[in-house]
Amino acid sequence: MNGAESVLRTLVGSGVDVCFANPGTSEMHLVAAMDRVPEMRGVLTLFEGVASGAADGYARMADRPAATLLHLGPGFGNAFANVHNAYKARTPMVNVVGDHAVGHKPLGAPLTSDIESVARPVSHWLRTVKDARAAATDTALAVAEARAGGVSTLIFPADAGWGESLGPAAPVAVRPAPPVSEGAVAAAASALRAGGGALLLGGVATRGPGLELAARIAEATGAQLLRDTFPWRLERGGSRPRPVGVPYITELAVDALSGLSHLVLAGAQRPVGFFAYPGLPSLLADPATALTQLASAEEDVLAALEALASAVGARAAVPAVEALERVALPTGGALDLGSLTAIVGALLPDDAVVVDEAVTASVFFVEATAGAGEHDYLFITGGSIGWGMPTATGAAIGAPGRPVINLQADGSAMYTIQSLWTQAREGLDVTTIIIANRSYAILEFEFSRVGAEGDGRAARELMDIGRPELSFAGLAQSMGVPGRRVDDVPGMVSALREALAEPGPHLIEAMV
Amino acid sequence: MNGAESVLRTLVGSGVDVCFANPGTSEMHLVAAMDRVPEMRGVLTLFEGVASGAADGYARMADRPAATLLHLGPGFGNAFANVHNAYKARTPMVNVVGDHAVGHKPLGAPLTSDIESVARPVSHWLRTVKDARAAATDTALAVAEARAGGVSTLIFPADAGWGESLGPAAPVAVRPAPPVSEGAVAAAASALRAGGGALLLGGVATRGPGLELAARIAEATGAQLLRDTFPWRLERGGSRPRPVGVPYITELAVDALSGLSHLVLAGAQRPVGFFAYPGLPSLLADPATALTQLASAEEDVLAALEALASAVGARAAVPAVEALERVALPTGGALDLGSLTAIVGALLPDDAVVVDEAVTASVFFVEATAGAGEHDYLFITGGSIGWGMPTATGAAIGAPGRPVINLQADGSAMYTIQSLWTQAREGLDVTTIIIANRSYAILEFEFSRVGAEGDGRAARELMDIGRPELSFAGLAQSMGVPGRRVDDVPGMVSALREALAEPGPHLIEAMV
Repeated sequence: MNGAESVLRTLVGSGVDVCFANPGTSEMHLVAAMDRVPEMRGVLTLFEGVASGAADGYARMADRPAATLLHLGPGFGNAFANVHNAYKARTPMVNVVGDHAVGHKPLGAPLTSDIESVARPVSHWLRTVKDARAAATDTALAVAEARAGGVSTLIFPADAGWGESLGPAAPVAVRPAPPVSEGAVAAAASALRAGGGALLLGGVATRGPGLELAARIAEATGAQLLRDTFPWRLERGGSRPRPVGVPYITELAVDALSGLSHLVLAGAQRPVGFFAYPGLPSLLADPATALTQLASAEEDVLAALEALASAVGARAAVPAVEALERVALPTGGALDLGSLTAIVGALLPDDAVVVDEAVTASVFFVEATAGAGEHDYLFITGGSIGWGMPTATGAAIGAPGRPVINLQADGSAMYTIQSLWTQAREGLDVTTIIIANRSYAILEFEFSRVGAEGDGRAARELMDIGRPELSFAGLAQSMGVPGRRVDDVPGMVSALREALAEPGPHLIEAMV
Repeated sequence: MNGAESVLRTLVGSGVDVCFANPGTSEMHLVAAMDRVPEMRGVLTLFEGVASGAADGYARMADRPAATLLHLGPGFGNAFANVHNAYKARTPMVNVVGDHAVGHKPLGAPLTSDIESVARPVSHWLRTVKDARAAATDTALAVAEARAGGVSTLIFPADAGWGESLGPAAPVAVRPAPPVSEGAVAAAASALRAGGGALLLGGVATRGPGLELAARIAEATGAQLLRDTFPWRLERGGSRPRPVGVPYITELAVDALSGLSHLVLAGAQRPVGFFAYPGLPSLLADPATALTQLASAEEDVLAALEALASAVGARAAVPAVEALERVALPTGGALDLGSLTAIVGALLPDDAVVVDEAVTASVFFVEATAGAGEHDYLFITGGSIGWGMPTATGAAIGAPGRPVINLQADGSAMYTIQSLWTQAREGLDVTTIIIANRSYAILEFEFSRVGAEGDGRAARELMDIGRPELSFAGLAQSMGVPGRRVDDVPGMVSALREALAEPGPHLIEAMV
């Protein structure tokens, strides 16, 4: 058995059986081995940023890593932005990056580069395979590290693929998240018991079990429940507990966090601004607020919340939360952001997976969907745009049978538009709603805060994507996805209803 | 004057007045300063890989660097693949990469990453600006280093943009390429005088002056004239000297280089295989051939060739080269690779700029266009696909008034398809010919050499891009570029004639 086959068999044996692939010549032995390891599902993408984003979406829903298959340094470069998003959220992911054969690498062939240097900033675990005999063992370690919560990157020289291996390696036991100290629990309990405090949830704490523990703690202590601005996976809707999101805008976040006596961090880091601005603080918490770290994202947050619930004497029952009323379905009028968000809120199916890269419109969609039935809501965790469409692609594979709704800003859609082709190829149940405002609206907003001089015409040229006008419906059709453009409320309502009713991918270009 | 304005003014003062931009919030002060420095032409792209490829194409034609404007580590990641191509060819390029404000960076905001680590493998010169007072000086140095031949990357914290500067910096004198030693010239002269040798040209030596010197040297010594497989810019056609390209395929390259007594390298490195293969050599030259480095790509190749011409007693006159006959224009029959390449060869306008990312079809286009009038031919230098469409975009800006023909494989076209929108926005005279074979043909070729077992169905799934079928004509139209699909010879002939006659971008999807 060659090294390539030993790697694929080890991945499958360790529970990684989906591979988002963009292979090249140096990965040919891995590609050839796909036929000998039929348990591995290869999913072809047309660009590496689609592969890495899809692996992020897959793992968020499937709770286990997918692999990516990438072509040398430039392939990892193309994947980098969405690996970054995964890295920031500690999404389990195993990147397999082909490299030149060991003897070929020092000779300066055109595709040679320092892959480790590119991969290091976004890899929790990084290793270059020495030869075919080490390949399987390294692969098993890479999977175990990813399963412990993070991005593993395995650089794989071509001759480690074609050389004779020692066969597949057994799965490696996954290192459990380290427990927090009793002192951390006691400090958090005393902080919340003092009154006037809040509990800020991040990481896995925004999923069902964490939310229920947090709700019990809040009931016992009177603490406010907050959550990170952009959680990895927020389970919400119906009667689920509803922590309040820390706003994106620095001034609003400072307001929201002001006046707290204590802020206890559970799977979250201390709140920090997305960007710095002249004259505004980077750290968002009130300087008078005492910060207490119950658990970092790397620690066992759920066990820490359990211990905290005990320490504050929380009741065993999860406090009842009354479901919000669903927003009403608009029936007429112009299609604008208000009516569009209301239509989505009114029609969002139960058990949906929402992938939100709506950027400036995101906060309005979050609000409008709060009264929907239970659903999962995925946010962009590393701030790197071009994430939504690939992540929706992977989420649909990671959560088969569930409808995936991708709320997608138009500017950022163009980064990884190739995702649509993979959605069509795999027949994935993704409904993409393009919020077509024909501008980088986030930049116009940020620009307005910079204080430009003059008429700003040259600057605005760098934020206007309306010249020429893009046709997202046309782009979708050109990649095999039914696409339509709508510009009024009845059109949007029927387009969304039809897209949700019909299997397979759809794209709706909503002109707002 | 703030740091951002000082940077733009320094760029313009140093001769860099085109900026391919994909800005974000951390670059807002640079964007705002565009209105105060109208000499800077900002060209918006929808993806960073378009910006970096366009900067490559621009510099190859304009003989001076463009700037790119990129958004933190993920923005550089998106740009990486085409910066890699530029790096391998030492294309002058100045990347300006926004970063968080210095005080904000250590706080762990979502977009924080180690940008230097990502940029280092593809930057000849790399620096992070300390503050607004240093920004202009660093910028002038970055430009001078790029002009000396290479990629400069300047990481620019947001507060270096908004802080008060010391004003623009004067241009820094460009370091000349180091001369080669007299010994190197003497060794090359004696090698070629021995007979049975060849002169291998790379770097700037494949442009007019280098080719003429090489032709004189070949005439005096009887040496064969060879060139790199993928030169940066090959000036050819008409009566220009015609060095023979080293083949891409290892076996053919070994054949082509066999039996030489000496191989003298002028701006080229010793020939090395694109990839390694089991049982095939990585180094392509005959082990019995003596290698002599006249000049590396970093050294003054033209002066070295001048000195070599003197040393071998070459005549002052450039030997006459008879122009080849143009291929005949096909008039009927099926559209296939043979007829397509002939149509391009027959209709290629004088003074055209050809950007070749035809991959498996490249060698046939090179052959079919050899009898055309004088033109420039740009090749992919770093092997990273997704280069052709961005480079054609930048080449059109760097060579205004010249027709640009992009010979573009379909698989690699999808990497940076967003280029078309910038071509439409800027009204660029680019004719894109998509060679639509609906597969990663290069991978199928490479796969056939790997020796797969079984029926190879799963493997072939990762090389087939025909399911679903892409419509490149539709993609073009959706981005504002007139696009049409042709599937016969008359259709291709009239589509190409019309595209060349009408200003602005066009795309022809040639079904072969």
